[in-house]
Amino acid sequence: MISKLIHEIVKKNAPVVVGLDPNMKFVPKQIQDAAWESCAGLEGEDEDHRVLRAAAEAFYQFNVRIVDAIADIVPCVKPQIAMYEQYGLPGLEAYYRTVQYCRSKGLLIIGDVKRGDIGSTSESYALAHLGKTAAFGRKVPAFDTDFATVNPYLGSDGVKPFVNVCIEEDKGIFVLVKTSNPSSGEFQDVLMPDGKPMYEAVGRKVVEWGELSMDGEYSNVGAVVGATYPEQAAQLRALMPHTFILAPGYGAQGAAAEDLSVFFNKDGVGCIVNSSRGILAAWQKEKYAAYGAEHYEEAARAAAIEMIEDLRRVI
Amino acid sequence: MISKLIHEIVKKNAPVVVGLDPNMKFVPKQIQDAAWESCAGLEGEDEDHRVLRAAAEAFYQFNVRIVDAIADIVPCVKPQIAMYEQYGLPGLEAYYRTVQYCRSKGLLIIGDVKRGDIGSTSESYALAHLGKTAAFGRKVPAFDTDFATVNPYLGSDGVKPFVNVCIEEDKGIFVLVKTSNPSSGEFQDVLMPDGKPMYEAVGRKVVEWGELSMDGEYSNVGAVVGATYPEQAAQLRALMPHTFILAPGYGAQGAAAEDLSVFFNKDGVGCIVNSSRGILAAWQKEKYAAYGAEHYEEAARAAAIEMIEDLRRVI
Repeated sequence: MISKLIHEIVKKNAPVVVGLDPNMKFVPKQIQDAAWESCAGLEGEDEDHRVLRAAAEAFYQFNVRIVDAIADIVPCVKPQIAMYEQYGLPGLEAYYRTVQYCRSKGLLIIGDVKRGDIGSTSESYALAHLGKTAAFGRKVPAFDTDFATVNPYLGSDGVKPFVNVCIEEDKGIFVLVKTSNPSSGEFQDVLMPDGKPMYEAVGRKVVEWGELSMDGEYSNVGAVVGATYPEQAAQLRALMPHTFILAPGYGAQGAAAEDLSVFFNKDGVGCIVNSSRGILAAWQKEKYAAYGAEHYEEAARAAAIEMIEDLRRVI
Repeated sequence: MISKLIHEIVKKNAPVVVGLDPNMKFVPKQIQDAAWESCAGLEGEDEDHRVLRAAAEAFYQFNVRIVDAIADIVPCVKPQIAMYEQYGLPGLEAYYRTVQYCRSKGLLIIGDVKRGDIGSTSESYALAHLGKTAAFGRKVPAFDTDFATVNPYLGSDGVKPFVNVCIEEDKGIFVLVKTSNPSSGEFQDVLMPDGKPMYEAVGRKVVEWGELSMDGEYSNVGAVVGATYPEQAAQLRALMPHTFILAPGYGAQGAAAEDLSVFFNKDGVGCIVNSSRGILAAWQKEKYAAYGAEHYEEAARAAAIEMIEDLRRVI
């Protein structure tokens, strides 16, 4: 699967993934109003449930126009399942429909689910998001994204079931190594007796797991390394030469293009950079205000183009 | 919320939580067949979707009889969301219905979701599982369990949004400190420069977060410590005297009652022990085979009673 992602990145000359993390704060009012109207109360339905359905519908409609506006310039999207999960079952249905819609537009999809559990339970998560689950003599896919993000805190037996599904189904994962948030260092940077930080130990394991599922120059087992930590990324890039990096944190979280050059290998490959709010909520920024709420997706496209050009400059 | 859990544990004299982690391997055939029949194919529905609906229905019907059989003897249940998530949206609907059914029977519910992300995203997860999400001028609950399990790998800003919801909504969390699986030591046991293992650093943070949401003698911020690691639990028990422990790993994963006495404080409080397969799949064990598949829930009740008595012996 990683070779497919690289192929699409090279074809579009854009190592960029758009995070589909909708938030009511930046879904334009006309989309919210239309969703509310289209989700009329059902017979016997309580008002709370209608709110969930309408919010989910607003997210989906918001996403469709974003996806239409960016599908020809970016290779990949990354829906953050938490944003949907907070609206319950209707929210998760919007996540599912978003995944399906993105696939119909030829985009690759990273399910940002950050799952991880003990072995037998991790297997269920791996099947849920990347594989097929058995029942009644059949094997059926559930959420069926191309990649998933995975939390490594439980160790190899929590991660291996995902690696197995990568091998069996030609899928990929990105394991959290050094995350983009301010307090990621609390546990991830703890120094071990050899003087190396914890995230390096995780990085070494990612290399080991990765060898089980190579796909060309890179492994289907990638790593999440926050764009906000370029120094650590430089170490990790050297430690994991065949590991593809997913780098969140560009834009809204503060990382600049200059910070990102160290995330790539010398061939200009090896990393895909995520932006979520910076693209989805571009219409609320002064710079793109001329588009207005009515053309929020055009503001998103303009912001995506700017990000792509910004990154091309430094790779 | 933790005081409510303690109250129920004391009332029933049973520091036991039943993990509602159904698996097709131990859902009796008559339940599977009935679910398949009751989920007739819908107009235009593909076979795969019918499989998901029927599997989810089988899980729900399986759970209902288990819950009816144990609700008077245990204080709490812990549905593992991964088992449901692998059957997609119908599976998650079965999770939701299971939570609602358990609540109607007066049981407290730990959503075993092991979520965790960067700050703003963790907030969405916290609202999804414990709080209420805003939209259209209302605040509505989504999955609405009493407790959730939380992965700490991203540090304080990933955990604090859950703590905030604990404070605002009187809910609780159990943070993964030392998990029950064989490879949990890979990262959790790594020694730090002070010679202490990583899980102690997490334990110290749990104490710190816990001080923000005290509820009587214990905090609403609890810890997951595997029953399979009694030595580490003894250290953690001393380090975190006001932290309630959720201990998975009894039974099927290999821990015995003797291993568990160190998980409790001297007052006999401070821990709740989980068993999932050991109870749900009891009917498949030779010991309870006389119940047969037809009375699987009575086998579960017998296994739960045996577990409760086993634990009473050592506390």
